[in-house]
Amino acid sequence: MIETRIRFGIIGCANIARKVSRAILLSPNTTISAIGSRSLEKATAFASENGFPETAKVYGNYDAVLDDPDVDAVYVPLPTSLHLRWAVVAAQKKKHVLLEKPVAINVGELDRILEACESSGVQFMDATMWMHHPRTEKMKEVLSDQQRFGQLNSLHSTCSYVGEGDFLKNNIRVNSNLDSLGALGDMGWYSIRAILWALDYQLPKTVTAIRDAELNESGVILSCGASLNYEGKVVTFYCSFLSNLSTDLIALGTKGNLRVHDFVVPFTETVGHYYVVSNSKWVKLGLDPEPSEFKITTELPQEALMVQEFARLVERIHSGDAKPEKKWPMLSRKTQVVIDAIVASINDGYEPFEVVN
Amino acid sequence: MIETRIRFGIIGCANIARKVSRAILLSPNTTISAIGSRSLEKATAFASENGFPETAKVYGNYDAVLDDPDVDAVYVPLPTSLHLRWAVVAAQKKKHVLLEKPVAINVGELDRILEACESSGVQFMDATMWMHHPRTEKMKEVLSDQQRFGQLNSLHSTCSYVGEGDFLKNNIRVNSNLDSLGALGDMGWYSIRAILWALDYQLPKTVTAIRDAELNESGVILSCGASLNYEGKVVTFYCSFLSNLSTDLIALGTKGNLRVHDFVVPFTETVGHYYVVSNSKWVKLGLDPEPSEFKITTELPQEALMVQEFARLVERIHSGDAKPEKKWPMLSRKTQVVIDAIVASINDGYEPFEVVN
Repeated sequence: MIETRIRFGIIGCANIARKVSRAILLSPNTTISAIGSRSLEKATAFASENGFPETAKVYGNYDAVLDDPDVDAVYVPLPTSLHLRWAVVAAQKKKHVLLEKPVAINVGELDRILEACESSGVQFMDATMWMHHPRTEKMKEVLSDQQRFGQLNSLHSTCSYVGEGDFLKNNIRVNSNLDSLGALGDMGWYSIRAILWALDYQLPKTVTAIRDAELNESGVILSCGASLNYEGKVVTFYCSFLSNLSTDLIALGTKGNLRVHDFVVPFTETVGHYYVVSNSKWVKLGLDPEPSEFKITTELPQEALMVQEFARLVERIHSGDAKPEKKWPMLSRKTQVVIDAIVASINDGYEPFEVVN
Repeated sequence: MIETRIRFGIIGCANIARKVSRAILLSPNTTISAIGSRSLEKATAFASENGFPETAKVYGNYDAVLDDPDVDAVYVPLPTSLHLRWAVVAAQKKKHVLLEKPVAINVGELDRILEACESSGVQFMDATMWMHHPRTEKMKEVLSDQQRFGQLNSLHSTCSYVGEGDFLKNNIRVNSNLDSLGALGDMGWYSIRAILWALDYQLPKTVTAIRDAELNESGVILSCGASLNYEGKVVTFYCSFLSNLSTDLIALGTKGNLRVHDFVVPFTETVGHYYVVSNSKWVKLGLDPEPSEFKITTELPQEALMVQEFARLVERIHSGDAKPEKKWPMLSRKTQVVIDAIVASINDGYEPFEVVN
């Protein structure tokens, strides 16, 4: 049997593309066949610095990658405002699309991307890596466990980091023409996805941004928080470019609590930790029991597992065994819908904003 | 030199009084000289079960304790709605007042208690034990450290437990005649105090309760959350009688993060843990550094340190060296003011409610 690997093209040389390039090379069912940048020199340097196979083609533009018949799927790490244009062209050219998050400036743009993918019959997935760590599935088992966790009553997530150097002046993530969602799109994305994930992808009825969000002079969100209204639950998150790195999730149930302090990127590549405590009691001199630590190891890093899963779905389509998996575009869309509602709440003076799917 | 000990009277035999009785006996500068209950039998049993000194007097009512010239200070573990009456009488009879939390049903009642204490020149303190653990001071040092923590941007606290057995039917904490504040008074008290503590006792401008709070049929809060508006910060908490025990605080600063998972009562009586990480960076394959664990040991449990500090303040007053310390009534009052504002926000359809000192 001849080994088939899904052949990736990459458009753009963003920093995050280094991690995903490595992931494509680590994943057993994928390889890199092309990279394009607006600068041929940059693309050439990127390919050599990141150990691309010698067969990989290097282009001085994005179109050539999308026109290359040796490219099955394209990874798009471009600034968010460019996603609409390039993801749609990629889909039209029958390339499967692995799209960096945040996937779009708003759900209207995302819908055009998803429609293009659907009408071309290509797979769409956003690059939310932590979803693919085996720890994520294990934590979901905890949340679903009626004995250890019970019914979910409260969630809080924080996702933040401090941009280094001149980040707040020059990074694309704070440039209103490139990434107007700022910290909400870059880091809030993870918190919102985690909340949706914990609640079986049920959308909140309303969202209310917490006063006051911090915006830069061109209106890009540097820091904000919100509460998501699920009847009878208290669900909140905080995201920021101004606070020390955090990617925390705490979930409280009627029978137990789950905590994780590095859910977006594990402290250690090969092991993910989380903490669970169940049926806690006040005892005479303290609390009992103490939370237990769980460690989930993974041979492949989460980003390689993501690429592997994406390629598995593409293989199924290529072999005629299946249509594109609809779960992934659905998750992207719900995450974006919540983001849009939070932006609307901020713009509407922190009033509750109805979430419409 | 003759050893002088501040002599405590206790009115009421609530469960929490067992812990505080032990604390009074452990603290080197205090002793128990009397206990009163509506039932003499109950008071007698309580005294014997909790190792009271043989000299301790046992009364079948509260007044006798407050009239006893061998009582210097009184500990009041009665249901919240009875605080006004008994704390005021105690103060009028020149007894120093250590009052269980929540201190009152609302700030109007608290003010009458504080006025009675002030006009009698007696010390007032609420029984928020965790404030007195040496860990608390160490954590404050972290929050004040410009290198390790920087400027505080976000706080989240959860304080919850599930009442055992028929708690939700019969416990005084869910009885609208005894403790109408419910989970907000019992557990939210700790989160609010922790937030005030972290922010140098600055009051928020407004508070906004998170929809929807859960109330029982007589209007007692079983579960709620709120955001506290400090300009440019995202500060939230969750408190509940319906979620597994949690007493967490997470603080995010521009340079570091602080986390504690048992701030109200440490898992182990003699040691309190907390976690700090500073200047975290994304590195190629993960995050760096991992949070560090800090362990603060204490010979005396936090409730004994509380009693000891209270008695130290009383001694200073007795010896004529000082007036009552105003810090403690101020902290109680600010905590109560925030609680009142959250109740008002819930009653006002979750609108932001201005906090007035």
